[in-house]
Parts: sequence; C-alpha cells; structure tokens
Amino acid sequence: MSRFWSPVVQTLTPYVPGEQPQMQRLVKLNTNESPYGPSPKALAAISSQTTDDLRLYPDPEGTSLKQAIAKLHGLNPNQVFLGNGSDEVLAHVFAGLLKQNKPVQFPDITYSFYPVYCKLFEIDYKTIPLGSDFEIKPSDYATPNGGIIFPNPNAPTGRSIARSEIEKLLAVNKDSVVVIDEAYVDYGTESCASLLRGNACPENLLVVHTLSKSRALAGLRVGFALGHPDLIEGLERVKNSFNSYPLGRLAQAGAIAAIEDQAHLEQSSAKVIKTRTVLVEQLSALGFDTLPSTANFIFTRHPKHAGAKLYQALRDRGIIVRHFKSPRIEEFLRITIGTDEQSGELVAALKEILA
Amino acid sequence: MSRFWSPVVQTLTPYVPGEQPQMQRLVKLNTNESPYGPSPKALAAISSQTTDDLRLYPDPEGTSLKQAIAKLHGLNPNQVFLGNGSDEVLAHVFAGLLKQNKPVQFPDITYSFYPVYCKLFEIDYKTIPLGSDFEIKPSDYATPNGGIIFPNPNAPTGRSIARSEIEKLLAVNKDSVVVIDEAYVDYGTESCASLLRGNACPENLLVVHTLSKSRALAGLRVGFALGHPDLIEGLERVKNSFNSYPLGRLAQAGAIAAIEDQAHLEQSSAKVIKTRTVLVEQLSALGFDTLPSTANFIFTRHPKHAGAKLYQALRDRGIIVRHFKSPRIEEFLRITIGTDEQSGELVAALKEILA
Repeated sequence: MSRFWSPVVQTLTPYVPGEQPQMQRLVKLNTNESPYGPSPKALAAISSQTTDDLRLYPDPEGTSLKQAIAKLHGLNPNQVFLGNGSDEVLAHVFAGLLKQNKPVQFPDITYSFYPVYCKLFEIDYKTIPLGSDFEIKPSDYATPNGGIIFPNPNAPTGRSIARSEIEKLLAVNKDSVVVIDEAYVDYGTESCASLLRGNACPENLLVVHTLSKSRALAGLRVGFALGHPDLIEGLERVKNSFNSYPLGRLAQAGAIAAIEDQAHLEQSSAKVIKTRTVLVEQLSALGFDTLPSTANFIFTRHPKHAGAKLYQALRDRGIIVRHFKSPRIEEFLRITIGTDEQSGELVAALKEILA
Repeated sequence: MSRFWSPVVQTLTPYVPGEQPQMQRLVKLNTNESPYGPSPKALAAISSQTTDDLRLYPDPEGTSLKQAIAKLHGLNPNQVFLGNGSDEVLAHVFAGLLKQNKPVQFPDITYSFYPVYCKLFEIDYKTIPLGSDFEIKPSDYATPNGGIIFPNPNAPTGRSIARSEIEKLLAVNKDSVVVIDEAYVDYGTESCASLLRGNACPENLLVVHTLSKSRALAGLRVGFALGHPDLIEGLERVKNSFNSYPLGRLAQAGAIAAIEDQAHLEQSSAKVIKTRTVLVEQLSALGFDTLPSTANFIFTRHPKHAGAKLYQALRDRGIIVRHFKSPRIEEFLRITIGTDEQSGELVAALKEILA
C-alpha cells in the first residue's frame, strides 16, 4: 500500500494466472496450452523477421494480419480488432464497450478475469448462476443489462452451447453488446464468427479469439475480436489511446503464418479431441464425473476424493493441474489435455493415488 | 459513433503515431528509430527461443528480464516494472499513479500521448508552458498537483535538464509522484535512475525507459519503469488486472540480451551523437535554428521557410520527417538522426529546396 497509488488501485484484486513452474520433468496440465507446437510456417515467418529491421516500429494497424484473419473468417478487415493476447482484447472490450450505466452480466462460474476487469474499470456486474449441470442458460441473461459476456465453451467447465442458442439470445437482447469469448472454440464448439458475415452482421455481437490455444502460440501474445465495424472502431479508439503498438513485428509475422496454416490447427485439434475422448473414458473407469467438454481441457471430480487433496497428490508426483478454491467448484480439477503420453502419466498417477 | 460504445469512448481523440510508410527507397527520419540494428546477441537470443516452446505462456512476472535491468542500473528487481513498450508502461502509470484528485502537470509542448492518456482515464491535467527557449523549468511545477510527468530530454524539442534540477524539484514536491520519461536518455542526458539506488530511493520518483530507441528494438515492444518498490507494486496491481502477459517469450529473451549488451548501445549512441553534431552544424550553415539536443532527434526551424512547406518538400524527395501543426511549434521540423549517409541526403535535399 502506498499513498501514491491512484484510489482504485487499493481496491484491486489482480488476476492470478496458472503458475509457470520452472521445474524440469513436469507434466504441465494447468494452463490449457497446446501439447503440440505451432505451425512450422509461423516459426519460419518469425525467423525471417529476426533481423536488423527490429529497430523499426511495427505496423500500428496490423493491416496484413487483419487481412489474413478476415479472409479466414469470411469477413472484412474492418471487422477485426487485434490485441496482445485475448486478455488485452478483453480489457479493451470491458473499458470500451461494457462500461455502461447498467451492470454487465456473466456466469457465476467462468473465466475469473472478468470480475477483475470490472474492478479495474469500475464497472458494475451481476453474475448469473450456471444451471445444476454447470450449463450456461442464455435465456437467463435476457434481463436489462449493460452487456453480456461468456466463454463458449465456458471455462473452467469446458461446456459449450449451440450457436442457435446464442442467436436466440441476440434476438431478444438488442440494446447491449453480447461478447462470446471463443478462446477454446477449435475443439468441437460451433463458432459464432459466421454470424458476422455480410449484411446480416448483428450490430452488437463481438466474438473474441486467441492464438494461445489451438494455434499453440501462447508465448507470442496475439488475440483478436471480430464484430460489426462500429464496435471495432470503438475498440480501436481505446487501443489508440492506450498503446499504438501492442503487437510487435515478430508477433504479427508469426500470427499471419499461423492463421494461414489452418491444416496445422485442424491436425493438432483432432489429436487433442482424440486424447480427450480416451482420457474421459479412463477417468470414468476410475470413478470420476467429468463434465461434457468441447475444450482442450476437462473439468472433473471424484465423488470420494476431495479436489484439493487430488491436486496436491498429483503435484507431489510432478503433475500440475488447476484447482479453484471457489464455491460450487472446489471439488473439481481442471485438467488440460496433453499428449497421449502425458495423459497416460496422469491416469497412472491417479490410479496410484486412488489405490 | 455507435450507441454500444462506453460513454468515455466518444470523448477520445486517439494518439496518432508517426506514419510507417510502405514506400521503398525512403529516408525515414520521422519516428526516432535507431539507424543501426539491435545487438546481434538480442537477435541470437530471439532465434534460440523460436521453437515449439512458443506454445507455452511466457513468465508473467518477467523475472529474468527484471533481474537483468536491475543489475544494469544497480537496483533490486522489485524496483522494475515491465511493459509492452514504454507507451504501455506510461498507460499503467497514468491509471495507477497519476489519477488523483488534483490535476497532473506536464509541459504544454511535450509527448502528445500524455493528454490522450488523461482523456482515456478521465484525469484532470494542467499544462505548464515551456520557457521562451523551449526549456523545461522544474520550479514552475512545484504547485499543488496530482503528479508531474515530463520527458528528459523533452520531446519533440530534444532539450534536457540536469539531474540536479530534478533533485531540486523532488526536494519541494513530496506529495505526488514525479515521472521522468527517459525514452531518449542515452544520447547525452543524465539519467535519474541512479537516484533510486539504496536507502536514499525517493518514495515518489519513477523513471521510464524504452528499448525502442537506443537499443534499436522498436519492433519488439519492451519498456520499463524504475522506482520505489511501493510504486512498482501499485503498477503491478494494475498490470495484473489488465493483462498478465504483456511480454511474450521472444520479447523477454531479446530484451535480456539487449540489456546485457551495453557496449553495443554505447557504440550506436556514440555514432548517433557524432552524426547529430555534424548535422546541426550543416543546418546552421543553411540558416536553420536548432534547439540544443541531447536526443536522437533535433528540433529545427528556418526563419525564412515555413515548417509545413519544408516538410512537404522533403517528403516529395522521399525524405520523411515529422511536423506538428500545434501552437508555438508549427514552424519546426523534428528530424530523427539517421546514418551519416541519410544525414547527407537530408542536407542535400534541403540545399536544393532552399536554393
């Protein structure tokens, strides 16, 4: 505490990211990174930019990257907003679109950064309880609000809802922005990006993506939002009042190549989905209840073993998963889908722990 | 304009960075980049990190980079705050330290991003006029305020003041934060970083640096602030409520190597200073008045030729400098110091224009 802090700083409870332990020989299943590397074309593009030209500022608009993203999703470049990871994109979304006179609404169990942004930007919020099976019920959100945001699939549950459910919500929620955070969309969830195509693009739908998960570039820091050009313009105004150049030259070059290599994404995602299917079966055989997941992680609990105890027992064996000490979910573990080998080590360790 | 923007967005006038033209064969002297490349060790460090490990998140704390910076400046790592370029560092400084009940004070002619941050974060500000020779007079700032910020050397003038002048200001301004923005410090200005060493570290002094100028890594996006651990903690709280990972793995690796290669910085800076000395003499022979500069740019005007006209005439010849259409400085050109060859092309073009 310091008398020199701005008043709001004293009220903040910063977000705590999953730890990045420095231990070697670790099975790291705690931060939902891809177990496979990024597109080799992304690495080649980065290498080709690792020259004396790094002395020059990057393109502040990220023009080429916006074009590549727009092409992939069948949109116009003015429907794309870029940021330093989807966390920065979300920060600008909260400041630039969701700070309204009415409270923003999000699930009671969801990405724990949302309430942190609200505190930073002094935004009122209201949490909407998930259903009894931890599902998002969009009809619960159709009350007067200053904005709606939820991940699809939701985190940390991994559960998704159909695009048609979101279309129904948009049909009745026309006076505030609806943000669908699709960080984990590429593992079996229907994306809402296609709703933004052409003249039918809703004025108030924003879809947020990241390159940190399915494109395996968490270390590069690139995320983006897709939406109506007017929404994007609002975000650009905030970004250009904050930092003109959030994406460096290497990030832009790597991201373009990664976006263009859709085949690599599809191969990696297919492997993750296969490993997930096997893991869920193996956990079921051990007595675990796992929520249906369309993400690159699962949310699972054992009726006879406490989540905190299992977390620690795995950690003692060099396997790091994530455990949240929060109401309703403290018995769960969130486990990132790794390689088949990592998955095997996890199951072997759990067998030993439960024995 | 959109009814979905947060109210503050409609009031914003975003910062406009110097343009990054895509023309080839350009003499680009408009954004104060280094004419020389970064440390070869930085490029090597980036290459060594361009691997499948980019699938993993970076260290959110930037521990190793903080250690390298602390070592260089004789400080402790908890006196170092990292950001995505010094622009992002400054954004967090405005939000986290300078948003107070009294107005923040900065020069009337200075880095044009300061008033933009104030609008974004809804901070009152008061501008203090530079003296008649465009010098900062620290004693003018010693009135009740919510914070003081100015660059040393100032931009776009290039003029600096002695460290002892800033010490005098600190002696009389004890109730608000004093931020010295040292983006251009490595070309002949006394840094205030040494004031932060040991037990004498003032509680309210923050010094901001960037790797975009003298370290020639504008394309990588790394900046930092140095100060009392309590000030740094306030900034960390804001940063961790905004984006946990502003610096990717490549940025951290490249920055560490660049910080450790002080010899490369000193060689590049010495060359820039030599070119600056010659250029100022050549411009003087052409009738230009140039403010005394300790930066990698100069601020110059010709008594008989309008700034806007000179700017355009240079541009027509493929030489891009910066011109500000602002009161008191519209007759000036801000010219980045390039290589000797670029400087020669500039002088030849000006001779032709003035003939």
